[in-house]
Amino acid sequence: MTQTIFDRIAILGVGLLGSSLAQAVRAYGGAKDIHLFDADKEARSIAGRLLDGRVFDSAADAVENADAVFLCVPVGALGLLTRDISSSLAHGAILTDVGSVKQKASEDMAEACPDHVHLIPGHPIAGTEKSGPTAGFADLFKEAWHILTPLPSGEPGYAAAVERLVAFWEGLGARVEQMAPDRHDRVLAITSHLPHLIAYNIVSTAYDMESVEDGEVVKYSAGGFRDFTRIASSDPTMWRDVFLTNRDAVLETLGRFSEDLAALQRAIRWGDGDALFREFTRARGIRQAVIEAPDDVRDLRLELLGLEL
Amino acid sequence: MTQTIFDRIAILGVGLLGSSLAQAVRAYGGAKDIHLFDADKEARSIAGRLLDGRVFDSAADAVENADAVFLCVPVGALGLLTRDISSSLAHGAILTDVGSVKQKASEDMAEACPDHVHLIPGHPIAGTEKSGPTAGFADLFKEAWHILTPLPSGEPGYAAAVERLVAFWEGLGARVEQMAPDRHDRVLAITSHLPHLIAYNIVSTAYDMESVEDGEVVKYSAGGFRDFTRIASSDPTMWRDVFLTNRDAVLETLGRFSEDLAALQRAIRWGDGDALFREFTRARGIRQAVIEAPDDVRDLRLELLGLEL
Repeated sequence: MTQTIFDRIAILGVGLLGSSLAQAVRAYGGAKDIHLFDADKEARSIAGRLLDGRVFDSAADAVENADAVFLCVPVGALGLLTRDISSSLAHGAILTDVGSVKQKASEDMAEACPDHVHLIPGHPIAGTEKSGPTAGFADLFKEAWHILTPLPSGEPGYAAAVERLVAFWEGLGARVEQMAPDRHDRVLAITSHLPHLIAYNIVSTAYDMESVEDGEVVKYSAGGFRDFTRIASSDPTMWRDVFLTNRDAVLETLGRFSEDLAALQRAIRWGDGDALFREFTRARGIRQAVIEAPDDVRDLRLELLGLEL
Repeated sequence: MTQTIFDRIAILGVGLLGSSLAQAVRAYGGAKDIHLFDADKEARSIAGRLLDGRVFDSAADAVENADAVFLCVPVGALGLLTRDISSSLAHGAILTDVGSVKQKASEDMAEACPDHVHLIPGHPIAGTEKSGPTAGFADLFKEAWHILTPLPSGEPGYAAAVERLVAFWEGLGARVEQMAPDRHDRVLAITSHLPHLIAYNIVSTAYDMESVEDGEVVKYSAGGFRDFTRIASSDPTMWRDVFLTNRDAVLETLGRFSEDLAALQRAIRWGDGDALFREFTRARGIRQAVIEAPDDVRDLRLELLGLEL
């Protein structure tokens, strides 16, 4: 049990992330009281049965006297939700989120966040393909990276607030890093957003071929396709918002991906086995680095660059 | 323990598939004697220590008096290997393979296969991203589909030979299906070949960005990217051969994939959230079908088509 960092936290949105957060705090500490809210009535009702916290019918009521408020909703809803609660946020409270895109999230929240509140956007690199309050579990954040993108703030008390939030997440088992929001969005575009887009797309392509091939696409999915369907079963609303709000980084990364794919396509068309072999071998090298991460990422990266063929 | 179907089998190539086959036969039966061969000296030496069979230094010697010969090598090597053993194959023996592309495999093997041998090409929809003799295990084929693509042969005894081979694979736990080789190649292009190509490609794109982003691509790989690196760590030689020998079906499928991706790209660029949401929801539907397969694939397919949005 970690020390109590906050007397009271409010969790707004009790999907996979919010529900896991409530359970993690009960399991590992970090706060005494938990206030919960969700815009969806059924989710509130499930939260009341499933989670050990007080459920409110209004977001503004839920955040009253909370030391820290966690917005666990899709990125596109952050601005509106911040507006809804802005007049109820306590002086010196921390406002944070778990959104997958940080530049837009920061801007939207900052616009509605009162000056007397410490806004510290955040993003746990944790999740599963499941969604909703029943999908949550206490160990979701354990050993996972948690990225905070603090504002360049000169406010008194801001640095101390960041330290408290770091200690809170570390208490739940996370490894916390800080970086600039635009850098976060660029890195996540390749490590998370593009993989999801590609997975959605390949499943969609297969779907259209399914009727042509008479059920056999599903039947023989063990050949590699099944892994993609898992990723592609993630929450559609959340992912729609990710692509709408991280547009530039995703389009840039997608452009590179398509160029590289065109080169492979050309190698296949012209029977250039050497080029295919070289690319596949190179891809295999990065796998080794990923398996061995994160114990000593920096060293692995150096090894990786040494693998250049 | 299943009944003994063959007195002696020869397994040529002791990588993941060949090594698993040898172990499966020892665990579940199907043959009394196992003869083993691999072109690679080190693989032969490992096979000698690891597998319960007699290891030969020449493929031709290994197949002598074998009732069934299993070619467990990359598709591109099938023709040459068949030529190497053709004069040593016993009258009435079965010659089969485990190659991922069946049209080209059938043609290459048929060209060198003597008339007195029953050629029955095959492909187990089973595997892992690991390769080499030490990666094999006895249960690889359990509950997995095994596709046979018998020739349109009028030879006496051919139908009986197919039945024996079906019984052999079923004895190892596989579920056997028969289909035409071109259909196999079209179905596998979308369920296996394209997913691997895409995984190799995204890992390659990430590799090039890795140096730009200073190690952070590997560090934050849990966001989705890690799943792709697993697929992309499969054997480069095997996959080079797949793309060289199933060129037309892969290019056709890749063309569809790229069109669909262009549509998603356009939706992102123009902020068409409705289109993104619709596609992501559709992709989620196919996941359900895949999870529930294969208990009653046909019914699921009907449900799936009912999901049309």
